Amino acid sequence: MNPDFLKRKKDILSKQDKSSKQGYDEKIKDLCEKINQKQNYYTTSSCSGRVVVVKDISKSPGVFLFASHDLIDFENLKKELEGIKDNGIFKQEPCILHVACREFKDAEKLLKKAQLGGWKRSGIISSKDKFICELLSTEKLEFPIADKGKLLVDDDFLKVVVEKSNENLEKSWEKIGRLKSLL
Amino acid sequence: MNPDFLKRKKDILSKQDKSSKQGYDEKIKDLCEKINQKQNYYTTSSCSGRVVVVKDISKSPGVFLFASHDLIDFENLKKELEGIKDNGIFKQEPCILHVACREFKDAEKLLKKAQLGGWKRSGIISSKDKFICELLSTEKLEFPIADKGKLLVDDDFLKVVVEKSNENLEKSWEKIGRLKSLL
Repeated sequence: MNPDFLKRKKDILSKQDKSSKQGYDEKIKDLCEKINQKQNYYTTSSCSGRVVVVKDISKSPGVFLFASHDLIDFENLKKELEGIKDNGIFKQEPCILHVACREFKDAEKLLKKAQLGGWKRSGIISSKDKFICELLSTEKLEFPIADKGKLLVDDDFLKVVVEKSNENLEKSWEKIGRLKSLL
Repeated sequence: MNPDFLKRKKDILSKQDKSSKQGYDEKIKDLCEKINQKQNYYTTSSCSGRVVVVKDISKSPGVFLFASHDLIDFENLKKELEGIKDNGIFKQEPCILHVACREFKDAEKLLKKAQLGGWKRSGIISSKDKFICELLSTEKLEFPIADKGKLLVDDDFLKVVVEKSNENLEKSWEKIGRLKSLL
């Protein structure tokens, strides 16, 4: 069953990375490579967790006002926020991974390991000619940060948010490590 | 296959509701009932979307400082926030539904309809003796609102949050309606 899987896997993994970063996030690279070494799996997208400030509009060019895949610090965030001219949304997002799986039993196996590794919001999201697992953790922050160029939050709030975001990013990285060791 | 499914469905649906609310949220009741009328499906949990303020600790009794399944208003939220003595997290969460499905093809069919209806974070999360679909939308806010009893945000911020929360709740209710009409 599914004879085209290996051909598609080869095609996908040899194509140029279309993400704006042009490559895996450093913290999730080893996990992706471990998955891609297994015959019946390949990753189609990944993020190790991130903090972004985006314009409050649907996806369009220049929507990112700030983006970090590493720990953030108050001074740097504050500086970036000074440039906001419109509405802004702050988002700290957990690690996410999309994996194509050859057979249902392959998807089932990966899903169980992800759940065991603490990726609590994981599921099989597509079953057309292959099975796609979306593996996702839950640590997340999201709130409006600027309204018509005016910052809506003060330094005390931002300091708590920086601390919480960094805690959450570290939890994501822990979960990446746990899943890697379970595979 | 799966001969025990109908027996378990009957058992589950006749059991007393264990949620603190003791019943479906009003806005998702019709959708749950429509699902439960279909032989090969039954709902195991549901929420139409909500706004809560919780203590920043792992689940424990009395963790909810504020909870609403309906639109919120600034005056009322502000009043509730005055009573916070510890750390608090504000969460506006989207609609969520867990549905037990008899066969894989039943789960697949429901999943596709949920995705088509805008429940973008949906997947098959378990496949032990039946298949469980988690259907989830994405409109969400989450941020620290109080630190050691001190409110971290001002009225201007809260007013934007109330407006955004209500927009998000209405999007959840729209999606509940869309899924119901697709079933």
